[in-house]
Amino acid sequence: MAYDVLVIGSGPGGYVAAIRASQLGFKTAIVEKESLGGICLNWGCIPTKALLKSASVLESIKHAETYGLKASGEADFAAVIKRSRGVADKMSKGVQFLMKKNKIDVIMGFGVLKAKGQVEVTKADGAKEVVEAKHIILATGGRSRELPNLKQDGKKVIGYREAMVLPELPKSMIVVGSGAIGVEFAYFYNAMGTKVTIVEFLPRVVPVEDEDISKELEKQYKKNGIDILVNASVESVDVSGNGVKANVKKADGNVTLEADIVLSAVGVSSNIEGIGLEQVGVKTDKGKIVVDKFYQTNIPGVYAIGDCVPGQALAHVASKEGIICVENIGYNEKKYNHQPEALDYGNVPGCTYCTPEIASVGLTEKAAKEAGYEIKVGKFPLSASGKASAAGATEGFVKVIFDAKYGEWLGTHMIGYNVTELIAETVVARKLETTYHEVLNSIHPHPTISESIKDAIEVAYGEAIHL
Amino acid sequence: MAYDVLVIGSGPGGYVAAIRASQLGFKTAIVEKESLGGICLNWGCIPTKALLKSASVLESIKHAETYGLKASGEADFAAVIKRSRGVADKMSKGVQFLMKKNKIDVIMGFGVLKAKGQVEVTKADGAKEVVEAKHIILATGGRSRELPNLKQDGKKVIGYREAMVLPELPKSMIVVGSGAIGVEFAYFYNAMGTKVTIVEFLPRVVPVEDEDISKELEKQYKKNGIDILVNASVESVDVSGNGVKANVKKADGNVTLEADIVLSAVGVSSNIEGIGLEQVGVKTDKGKIVVDKFYQTNIPGVYAIGDCVPGQALAHVASKEGIICVENIGYNEKKYNHQPEALDYGNVPGCTYCTPEIASVGLTEKAAKEAGYEIKVGKFPLSASGKASAAGATEGFVKVIFDAKYGEWLGTHMIGYNVTELIAETVVARKLETTYHEVLNSIHPHPTISESIKDAIEVAYGEAIHL
Repeated sequence: MAYDVLVIGSGPGGYVAAIRASQLGFKTAIVEKESLGGICLNWGCIPTKALLKSASVLESIKHAETYGLKASGEADFAAVIKRSRGVADKMSKGVQFLMKKNKIDVIMGFGVLKAKGQVEVTKADGAKEVVEAKHIILATGGRSRELPNLKQDGKKVIGYREAMVLPELPKSMIVVGSGAIGVEFAYFYNAMGTKVTIVEFLPRVVPVEDEDISKELEKQYKKNGIDILVNASVESVDVSGNGVKANVKKADGNVTLEADIVLSAVGVSSNIEGIGLEQVGVKTDKGKIVVDKFYQTNIPGVYAIGDCVPGQALAHVASKEGIICVENIGYNEKKYNHQPEALDYGNVPGCTYCTPEIASVGLTEKAAKEAGYEIKVGKFPLSASGKASAAGATEGFVKVIFDAKYGEWLGTHMIGYNVTELIAETVVARKLETTYHEVLNSIHPHPTISESIKDAIEVAYGEAIHL
Repeated sequence: MAYDVLVIGSGPGGYVAAIRASQLGFKTAIVEKESLGGICLNWGCIPTKALLKSASVLESIKHAETYGLKASGEADFAAVIKRSRGVADKMSKGVQFLMKKNKIDVIMGFGVLKAKGQVEVTKADGAKEVVEAKHIILATGGRSRELPNLKQDGKKVIGYREAMVLPELPKSMIVVGSGAIGVEFAYFYNAMGTKVTIVEFLPRVVPVEDEDISKELEKQYKKNGIDILVNASVESVDVSGNGVKANVKKADGNVTLEADIVLSAVGVSSNIEGIGLEQVGVKTDKGKIVVDKFYQTNIPGVYAIGDCVPGQALAHVASKEGIICVENIGYNEKKYNHQPEALDYGNVPGCTYCTPEIASVGLTEKAAKEAGYEIKVGKFPLSASGKASAAGATEGFVKVIFDAKYGEWLGTHMIGYNVTELIAETVVARKLETTYHEVLNSIHPHPTISESIKDAIEVAYGEAIHL
């Protein structure tokens, strides 16, 4: 059976691309080796948010007295895990429904590019099927990156996937790497009662964020009892005893850390092996598939999106890439009237859902200076926000960066209560080429945390009212 | 002592105006009869948000099992009230600090306009002082409106102010009026354990909102055990017994409701009595002070902002009016280079902080049709949001309204978890004259509730991916 569009991988890149393809009138199929929704829905964004919600409710219960309540409680770790799996399963079933509704054929199995227009799918029972399609979109995603010194055995040295379904709560855990995945699990396990130590190779936690964000997160994490080692790397692990002994190299000498579990959270590797790229001659570079701005590879009719191409390895990036890729195919085939806009990777928001939450978009202060901008910076502490006080969550701040010359909004960096829900405003305003002036003349409702964006802009321009 | 600018009333209109005046180099004073920060900080926005936070934490504890937690707890009502007062006091002290920092003289007492340029302040001890100022800004605010059939005695028939500091938790309460104040207290007391009945004169609760919002709120409130009577009015109350008997007129006949307390939440009256308007000849109309777009009254040198002028009686409106008023004075006196933009009252967001939260801006569906627009409407249920599922809060929806002809964003109406933090995006995008196209090309981070705005726009334009 021949398709117009065949997508390999049903994560937030692949399933979204398939739906858009079907909407544009393409006969579409999707190949999935495991669970519809991919890592994001099943082993990433969604189940971790469920775990983090349980953690944050538990923390509220522990601090109930500060809200005038009398309460006591504890986590049933197995039930917390079970709830998270239930939420993931529900979302995966939702994708199943969407595939059916959009008349997309779902082919369960492992897809390998055989030739231009041909994908061989190996089913669970070993049976092979060759599927033909005019356009093949590779959306094979990524996996937990493995360091040579930190091989994952899935038991004592684990990746994010095992960290989501541990059979019991570990007493202690070493988290290696402090990007989004690392600090989210660190927060979760610390809140559940595990003694957590973060080991970060670079000089600061969440190293892609603005330096002020790193400082604030480190402060809050330490206050909550999480140990943090920066400029530190795991040289070797010894799993021969009951737990794990990690030999950690620091500037002032080596130390041995002991814990029940080591979680390796040192980034994501693209799934580009064994999917037929070499046979068909699809170009790769530095472990990623090379594509143009419409996600066309060097082989006509073969496209790639999501974590297996360059750009931020984020679900919302993959989804947008999928839509752009398919709309451009539609445009070329005269099924869609508009050539899509290329994605602006400089205006992609990033969110981390630990407590306090982190959200950012655009240039950090350092990057803005390095890019040669003369800048105006405004920082508004949430301790001055009425809503944050009412919510009992005054940690953190909103920091905005503007170009001094033309008033362009270069970046927003936030840490605190609910900030992941606030970042879309900056993205849209930047898309619309705002200056500070229009934002100050847009009323932010009182009392909200979102007001703090306006307040931070007032600080940048010397018009701060509430500071 | 003579001032450049004298402000009467230190609510979010008055204190913000005073700070901006001082920033522009005006010698400034502020007159306050009670507590710095006015109703908003002391008896409105801020302390109610503190109460509502306690209520929402309590609800989390009650539903702890759904998050995989074992917990039990109850409210210590006196402690809940005490916390709320503490938050209000902290914010009021914050305003005190801001007055000092900005070198604004605070004159405690009741200010009355005596003549152009003259205000007589009566202190707590009865002493009177006449203060002179070139520009006088009236920011006297509002108070709970009293219905003739529902006189407030402050004990059994109360307004919002008493509702914030009841000496003990009432077993039952009738809330008359279902605007923001009414439904917020209804949620709070219901969560605390009070049996709550809402009586609304109009055919639906939160009657200024889009009809779909009213339906959803009614559904959720009824599910949570709140009784709701619409098309109903309180004809009389009998406070002679232990509690209150309210004679309520309904379409199908009268009923008598009994409760410990009746809360009257039928709107706000402006404080325009006894402040010297008649003596000086300041024009009023329908209980409000008449002003031009820069808040100048008919008397030169006398201005009015906030709840005592027409326009939405909201803190963020008052603050912005204060800034515009002062910047225009500055512009006229050559202390400020830009004539401010007049406020667009059609782009003012409104938020209600009950559970589920409500946030909206712009035209409702009905208003858009009545204004002659051909519209595109998109509604995205939060039950389809991954973040809402992970948070265990899938009630509600995001509804967007666009002009079909030019793609103008006419309105957004949201009900659900955290939506009050999302509405600023629409305000800013409308300010920047966006069309749906730019918003769809602005990446909303996954997983957030803010994505649902993008999803709703996709629904409006027939491009829904996740529905």
